[in-house]
Amino acid sequence: VNDSARRVARSPERRIVAALADLFRPGTDRVASIGIGDDAAVLRKRSRGLVWTIDTSVEGVHFERRWLPLADIGARSFHAAVSDVAAMGARPIAALSSLIVPARLGERTVRGVVAGQADAARKLRCPIVGGNLARGDALSVTTTILGEVEKPFSRGAARPGDEVWLVGEIGLAAAGLRWLMSGRRATGLDASSRRAIAACVAAWRTPRALVREGLGLKSRARAVIDVSDGLSGDAGHIAEDSAVRIVLEERAIRRTLRPELFCVCEILRLEAFTLALTGGEDYALLATGPKRLRVRGARVIGRVVKGGGLSVQTLDGRLRAAPAGFDHFYRH
Amino acid sequence: VNDSARRVARSPERRIVAALADLFRPGTDRVASIGIGDDAAVLRKRSRGLVWTIDTSVEGVHFERRWLPLADIGARSFHAAVSDVAAMGARPIAALSSLIVPARLGERTVRGVVAGQADAARKLRCPIVGGNLARGDALSVTTTILGEVEKPFSRGAARPGDEVWLVGEIGLAAAGLRWLMSGRRATGLDASSRRAIAACVAAWRTPRALVREGLGLKSRARAVIDVSDGLSGDAGHIAEDSAVRIVLEERAIRRTLRPELFCVCEILRLEAFTLALTGGEDYALLATGPKRLRVRGARVIGRVVKGGGLSVQTLDGRLRAAPAGFDHFYRH
Repeated sequence: VNDSARRVARSPERRIVAALADLFRPGTDRVASIGIGDDAAVLRKRSRGLVWTIDTSVEGVHFERRWLPLADIGARSFHAAVSDVAAMGARPIAALSSLIVPARLGERTVRGVVAGQADAARKLRCPIVGGNLARGDALSVTTTILGEVEKPFSRGAARPGDEVWLVGEIGLAAAGLRWLMSGRRATGLDASSRRAIAACVAAWRTPRALVREGLGLKSRARAVIDVSDGLSGDAGHIAEDSAVRIVLEERAIRRTLRPELFCVCEILRLEAFTLALTGGEDYALLATGPKRLRVRGARVIGRVVKGGGLSVQTLDGRLRAAPAGFDHFYRH
Repeated sequence: VNDSARRVARSPERRIVAALADLFRPGTDRVASIGIGDDAAVLRKRSRGLVWTIDTSVEGVHFERRWLPLADIGARSFHAAVSDVAAMGARPIAALSSLIVPARLGERTVRGVVAGQADAARKLRCPIVGGNLARGDALSVTTTILGEVEKPFSRGAARPGDEVWLVGEIGLAAAGLRWLMSGRRATGLDASSRRAIAACVAAWRTPRALVREGLGLKSRARAVIDVSDGLSGDAGHIAEDSAVRIVLEERAIRRTLRPELFCVCEILRLEAFTLALTGGEDYALLATGPKRLRVRGARVIGRVVKGGGLSVQTLDGRLRAAPAGFDHFYRH
């Protein structure tokens, strides 16, 4: 909606851009002295260090339009991008957005997606200070987020002796996605199954970036990552970057799983524990840290030991290799 | 190539991501303490203000693959994004990139585009410190750039009495694009026509963000914009945001036009002056400022007067309304 907006300003989309600017305006003054409508957003000076990330959601790859209300497409992409900032222990301060919207979808689609972005931006106190709007064959939403932090977390700071902490839920979003992919209808199922399905679908449709929780790990956690690819894959990243071995404990993980997950997995004939380990897009936080610094709300699901790689300690106490993580390219 | 990279790290694209990281690494240490491979890039503290922009190029909308070598797709998008930063009088400091690449195009395409981005990043001293790689049906390249500046230019600071300055060339890129769109072959044309076509096509394929020129306008220009949508449209933005009237002078503009533009326009039966006024993507800089502060290399092409809107003073001295600018949605 900087240069981008200009590019469509003389086309029939003129009204959309004006509407976008209005939607995005709230809160921008706090962070930007020149926002939407110039070549680039001008950010006010900040005394802290900055972290910076970009994330893209593509129709047909990360979502199908029939699975999501338009506003959720916008909000979901926004939270996914902010989640990376949360995993650095940073506070999001501002965002830019770039939309690709097929011409056939028209103004209603843009407004719908943007309303969801604006809503997420408001809730996360991370105003959208500019962006871009382009035509293209498939709908996609790219969000770039700047965050500020004194001392960012990295994935490479886990140490042998650390506990492995889970903050937030895992598996629900993956179960919700599998339900949507199955194309099944919930009619005919009992009320509690329907509620469980609704909960899983909601977890996939409307994830929440755990910003406050990330800030709460400050001075306590050593390594932090957000579980966007699945617990197994993301735990593997910490192990690799920290040059340690991570042991995930099946018993402890099972205790964290919600009954809704077991219910939907039963309906879809999926194994709940495996889905929790490999399913992505929950945007929970996975951290390691010493026991004495464990934060409230963090559940211990494993331990860091010397060595390398990732293993799972099964219910019978044996160690086995961890399964691979979620692959966003499910369509291919 | 932060989170993004991770998302494909367990798919066959693993090798690509490692290659990307190597390509992007040079220069990152200067600006980022944690770069490619974590949830977000961590930027070193800077004492100056920041400007921030995002830009997207989509296959089938902004370019066709048959018109551009892969590396030029990457470099061109990068320069286009940096151009917005140059128009703020800022120095680009770092970039993130998000690619959408159809699965059928495979690794060679990603490597080709990325090589062009890395090359542009090196030339512009603006390292790519992270990014994203996703599947999708159409190739697209999104680039977000942070720049630093003491006192950014705006579009809204032009004053009556200012001259209107052009820094860089206009019309050539639009003529090059029209040539490519025509599908014609240059075989059979004389050598000087072929040279002119090559020059115009090169202007479209390999634009250069005028960073040094933008910095050179510091303390001299009042309002600055980059000519991405066409002179007419972009001059109109300055007029609107500054609440002034801008008069572009046909005689002065014609004097700035290159012989190659006239030559290609003759072949394509286009009117060179109109194309120069409405064609986009040259990434020249358009500025206003007082005569005594005019910079070397800036050519006077008009004047700022009281009132509102944009007009063109034709060769006979009469004023007429300016034509509309270039529309990136040419396919629709």
